[in-house]
Parts: sequence; C-alpha cells; structure tokens
Amino acid sequence: MTIVGFLFRSCQESQLFWRHGLARETVGVINAGKSRHNEDQACCEVVYVEGRRSVSGAPREPSRGQGLCFYYWGLFDGHAGGGAAEMASRLLHRHIREQLKDLVEILQDPSPPPLCLPSIPGAPGSLDGPHLVGPQPSWSSQKEVTHDSLVIGAIENAFQLMDEQMAWERHGHQVEGGCCALVVVYLLGKVYVANAGDSRAIIVRNGEVIPMSREFTPETERQRLQLLGFLKPELLGNEFTHLEFPRRIQPKELGQRMLYRDQNMTGWAYKKIELEDLRFPLVCGEGKKARVMATIGVTRGLGDHNLKVCSSTLPIKPFLSCFPEVQVYDLTQYEHCPDDVLVLGTDGLWDVTSDCEVAATVDRVLSAYEPNDPSRYTALAQALVLGARGIPRDRGWRLSNNKLGSGDDISVFVIPLGGPGSYS
Amino acid sequence: MTIVGFLFRSCQESQLFWRHGLARETVGVINAGKSRHNEDQACCEVVYVEGRRSVSGAPREPSRGQGLCFYYWGLFDGHAGGGAAEMASRLLHRHIREQLKDLVEILQDPSPPPLCLPSIPGAPGSLDGPHLVGPQPSWSSQKEVTHDSLVIGAIENAFQLMDEQMAWERHGHQVEGGCCALVVVYLLGKVYVANAGDSRAIIVRNGEVIPMSREFTPETERQRLQLLGFLKPELLGNEFTHLEFPRRIQPKELGQRMLYRDQNMTGWAYKKIELEDLRFPLVCGEGKKARVMATIGVTRGLGDHNLKVCSSTLPIKPFLSCFPEVQVYDLTQYEHCPDDVLVLGTDGLWDVTSDCEVAATVDRVLSAYEPNDPSRYTALAQALVLGARGIPRDRGWRLSNNKLGSGDDISVFVIPLGGPGSYS
Repeated sequence: MTIVGFLFRSCQESQLFWRHGLARETVGVINAGKSRHNEDQACCEVVYVEGRRSVSGAPREPSRGQGLCFYYWGLFDGHAGGGAAEMASRLLHRHIREQLKDLVEILQDPSPPPLCLPSIPGAPGSLDGPHLVGPQPSWSSQKEVTHDSLVIGAIENAFQLMDEQMAWERHGHQVEGGCCALVVVYLLGKVYVANAGDSRAIIVRNGEVIPMSREFTPETERQRLQLLGFLKPELLGNEFTHLEFPRRIQPKELGQRMLYRDQNMTGWAYKKIELEDLRFPLVCGEGKKARVMATIGVTRGLGDHNLKVCSSTLPIKPFLSCFPEVQVYDLTQYEHCPDDVLVLGTDGLWDVTSDCEVAATVDRVLSAYEPNDPSRYTALAQALVLGARGIPRDRGWRLSNNKLGSGDDISVFVIPLGGPGSYS
Repeated sequence: MTIVGFLFRSCQESQLFWRHGLARETVGVINAGKSRHNEDQACCEVVYVEGRRSVSGAPREPSRGQGLCFYYWGLFDGHAGGGAAEMASRLLHRHIREQLKDLVEILQDPSPPPLCLPSIPGAPGSLDGPHLVGPQPSWSSQKEVTHDSLVIGAIENAFQLMDEQMAWERHGHQVEGGCCALVVVYLLGKVYVANAGDSRAIIVRNGEVIPMSREFTPETERQRLQLLGFLKPELLGNEFTHLEFPRRIQPKELGQRMLYRDQNMTGWAYKKIELEDLRFPLVCGEGKKARVMATIGVTRGLGDHNLKVCSSTLPIKPFLSCFPEVQVYDLTQYEHCPDDVLVLGTDGLWDVTSDCEVAATVDRVLSAYEPNDPSRYTALAQALVLGARGIPRDRGWRLSNNKLGSGDDISVFVIPLGGPGSYS
C-alpha cells in the first residue's frame, strides 16, 4: 500500500536554544508527499522539569531553582490509522517529564544516585545516607547505578506509560492504529536516542557515520517472538506455529523433511514435517515483507491494542514491545563542527537511502551554505526527503539512479550538533 | 572456592593435518595446576562424516567418495563435579558428526541447499527439485538458507542432544555437575566457533585481536532470565523475584522506593518496595560474583540437570541454556602467517589476562621460535597458562604485575591459522 503524505512541514518555528554553543536553528522536519494522507507525526519541544520536591506549585524558570530542561525531538511513524502517532506526538514528552521529576535533584548531584528513597516524596534533603542504614545483608555488594541509566529508565518507563494510556483511552478517543517512535532527549550534555520500531537515527560527524539506533522487525526480533510463542502457546491460538520455515509448507509434504529453526537456533536444520507444522509460521517473510502473524512488519512501538490477525480474533499486541532501546551519546566528549548532525528518519527514508548516501548528502548540501546560515539544516532535511521520494518519470517516482522512490511516508529531522560559539 | 588443576596436559600426540597449507603441529593444550583436581577437559579430533546415503556400512577414506572431514577442538570447563565435562569431551563431536550426516552431499554441492528432503533418507539422487513441486502457496517467497547456517544448525542441535543425553544418563552414569563448552569446528575452509558459557575464543591475526565469542553470564543474559521468570513465575517458586535490585532489600525498608529494573529495561527506576520485592532477586551480584538464583555464575552450558537452589528443591536448569552462539570465520578470505593463531581459553585465563595481553604474549613467544618449529605453539599455550597462574610469592600465587594469579582452572588451546606451504 502506497500512502505518501502531502504534508510539507518545516518546524522552523521551533527556536530551540542549545546551552553548549550549538546551533540556534536546530530543526528541520519535512514531509514530502505524493498522496493526501501522511501517518507520520513529529514533535520538538523544550521541556522544563520541576522537581517533585518543589513546594511552590508554579513552574520556575530554567535558570533559577532546581529544575531541569531537556530538548526533545520525536518522530512517530503511524500505521493502521494515525491516532496513535498523533497522540504520541502530543503526549510522550510529557510522560518523560513526569518520569524525570523524581530525578531532578539526583541528576544534578555528581555523587552516585541513592539506591533507596523515602516513601513520601516531598521531604527535602532526605535523599540518601540515612535510608541505607541497617545491618549489611548477606548479599553485601551494591551495584553501581549511573546517572545515565536513570535517564534511560525514565525514558523506558515513559514509553510504557504512553502505551498504557493509549490502551485506556482507545475506546473514548479513537486511538486507532499504532506507531513506531524514535525520540531524542538532550539533557545535561548528553543525547539519548530511544528507538522502538523501524525508524533510524545516525550521527554524521566529520563525514563519518555513527549508528545511534537499531531497527526492530520480525527478522531482528525473531528469537524473542518465537520464545514468547513457545512459552505461551495459547497466544498462537492453534493458528500459528512458533517454528520458522523458509517457505510455506504444502499439506502433501507431510512426512518429508523441511528446513526449520526454533527460538534457540540461528542456523537451520531439517525436521520431519508433522501436522502442526502446517500452521502458519509466527514469523515469516524477508526484508520489508517480513511479518509477525502474517500481519505487521514492525515489532516495537506504541498502540496497536486493537490489532488482530486478519479474519481472526487473535490479538497481535502480546508479541509487540513498547520498550525502546536507548543509546547515549556524550556531546561533551567530542568537538563538533557546524557540519556535524544527528539525522532521524522514518523507514521511508532508509528503505531507499543508505547511511553513507545520507552522509554524502549532508556534505553536499551543508557545504553549499555558509556555516552560520541556519536555513542549511532545513535545506538538508528537504534534500533528504525529496531525494528519497524521487521525481515523477517513466510512470513512477524515480530516484536519481532511476530506481523507484520510496512508496512510504518520509519524515526527516536534522539536528545540528555543533556550530559557531556565537549561537550559544 | 579455589580449585586449580595439577594436570599438565599437552596434546602433542594429536597430529592434525590441515588441508590448506596450515601448520602440521596444530595443538597445544596445557593445564597448569596448583591443586589436585581439575574440572576442565579438552578434546581434539579429526572426525570423518559419512553421508547417510552411503550404501556400504564401512567408513570410507576422506580422499575418496562423498564423505566429509572436520577438525575439532573442544574445551569444557566443569563445575560442581567433573562428570559433565568429561562426558562432553568424549561425545560432543560425535553428536556433531551425527548431525552433519544429512548434510554431507548438500555441503559439497555449491547450489543452494534444498529446502525440503524426501521422507526416507537413503534414496540417492533425490535431493531437490521434485520435492518442491506443487502450486505456489500464498506466501510465495522463499528464504535463502546458506551452507554456513546448516553447519551452525547442526552444531546447535548437537549441543542440545548432548545435553539431553546427559539428562537421560545422569542416574546410571554419574554425570554429575555441568560444564561450559567452547568448541571449534574447521570444515570446508571455514572455522566455526561455538560457545556456551564463559570461556572465550579470540583470533590474533597480524597482531590484532578479533573476538570470536561472547560470554554468557547472569549479567549478559539478565533480560532473557528475567523474561523467563516473568512469563513462568512458577519457576521462581515464591522464593525469587524476577526484578533486579542493586542490593538486597531489608524488611524494614518496605514502603520506601528502591531502584529496580525488569526484563524490559536496561536503565533503572525507582519503585515502591512491596512484600514480594523482599524475595531474593533471580539475578544478583556483579562481575565474577553475579549469580542466577544465588547459585551459579554461568547461564549456558551442558549438564546441571540436578542443580538445585541451596537449601531448596527448586531446579535451576530451566534458566540455563545449552545452546551455543556460533561465529564463523572464513579462513580462505585472508592470508595467514605462522604467527596468526586462534586462542581458546577457559575463564581461568581471561579473569586475569586481557585480549591484548594475550596478543602480546603471542608475539613475544612465537617470535622466539623459528616459524616452522611446531613446538612454538605448545610453548605459547604453556606461557599463557603459566602467565595466568603466576608464581608462588608473598603468601600467594602472583602475576608478573604482583596481582593475584587466577584461582580457577586454566586451560588453553592454541590453534595456528597459517604456516609454510610445506605443511600442506
């Protein structure tokens, strides 16, 4: 199905200021369209987090008090309806803010995070030490928990709560469909890239590509899915087998020996075909045609609470995970120039564009502008989207190499990582 | 517990011949000892695989007919008794041979493996084509299966069958304990390294380290273990919680908020401590002290069918996997010199020796011998073992840096990857 958005959206109105001498004009989001509907959604925000311990209910300025600011970009690739992507673009950063509230003081204190907090939030100055007293237990060692891992935990739980909210509200508010979510949080000098789905983030630094995410598809998550089907066979409803076969088995092949692999295997072996092997495999197909339960091609994301197997009442949601994988990039560890960028794109971009091609486009477009011209990043996002879309020619949208352009929604964020000090 | 073997074992009697111009004297296995018992076992073999289709029951010469030869090295680090390691060292390669029997013709045929085989093995010349006839099914694509992945599948299934055999025979034959298994199969120009446990294999090529395995410990497999505990809580027997905490919780801390993470999280977050959180965590501790169910420090291997939680009847085996991860190295893709080696070691080596230190020892020892002196590899294995063991000084076994030597069994295989053509 070819659904390509008509929306051309540039978030230039978001005047984000970075604290570390980075570019002022940070954001270019562009959706290039071939058709009327675009299920992608995007969001960028500066979010202020007030600690739970603040007595006053009123929000304080970031510069004063103990609050924290984070910068936020989210890209949501919807499917089976735009409701989930739209809801996530409105609310996910609020869930992240809520999760960070407990951490406002802890993250600004260089000492290791307290392992235990008092039961009632709001008691100031009672964070650590005293709550760890008592005799040393038999398991005496303590695990070191980093500040980074608290932010990662906050983002992970925010994704889960967002997903739960979609479940609660799906009847009243028409939260139809689901969405992949790719989110960037910039907090206290570090960039957290959280990905649940098949969008992708890369950093292009000094012309080199640094992957910042992995895709979650029926192929990359095959063993997790098969293990779940094996441990909870009731989820397969007598319609599916947790085994994978390299092609559909024909009933007349019963008794022959077919290649298969189970949840423990990465290699293939032959097994005698039995009656239950004629069920449809839980995971089948390759590349863009890979599917879970013959239905969905991504295995992580938000929503999809109503998604059922075609012509069946079997729910697919139990096999989908709402949890992102979070990668951390310490901006303070490297010198960045104005041509260093973080690029987020939905699969519409990456299906037809390699990481290296994106890096080449970054070089080509940015070098055509002055380093301090903020419109260069919007031009880059536009070039990436239009390059993946192609132009109408020979009865189709064609790329510069004459291959077919992406038939999917295409959305791209370009986030500059460096820039002249005058931007600070 | 410090159990270090007294056994000094050099497998120089194994005169392995490589087919591709590699070294004739291929093997040095050495166990250096501080005490009487050594639970490590080692094995190296040349194994001939006769295809199932052979009519004659007698084995044929490798040079004639359709049989296959593979070269095999296995390192088995036993725990809680030496029975499992001893049994694996005698039998695992036979299980691999058995699994490869179906593949003898397929692996020697450059065309893609047939997806389906006839039901009765032994009918010659009926491997492919005809068995794939019939109408194209609705899921029409076929997955490409490589020859490599068939060998990987064969090794994986051989590990599983070895583990099952230990389960059947554990009462009659005293197969006490369990073992990590690190196995190398050299077949048709490729090196397959299969690891289940915390042993490690590296290639040192041109002085550089190429990791050939990953360790499987409560820390590296935390999420798999927690997921199993979450999905099958009966395996935790009201004694354990699938949640991880950074330290043991005290009963008086009920109601406070403690850092935790579950099977979905890589980060940490705070949760209110409830009664069931006072159970012991399924996974606890760090580094060499990490444990599953407070008992075992490795999460993959063979055996352990009788292993129970201390002072309990709760079995631990359901959480342990017998499946190895298999990495493939194509020997024909690189030029190898006589100083290029594959080093296998049990954790006794790696606990006190880094990959780079091993590479430095490879350089130091091998450069002291003529390139065509086969005893250089035995000397290298010996140097690695003795270097990790240390020498008695200051009331302990000390390394050259005065740190304590390994308190564990130490076993090392050195397998040369290149050599003068005259060895072929």
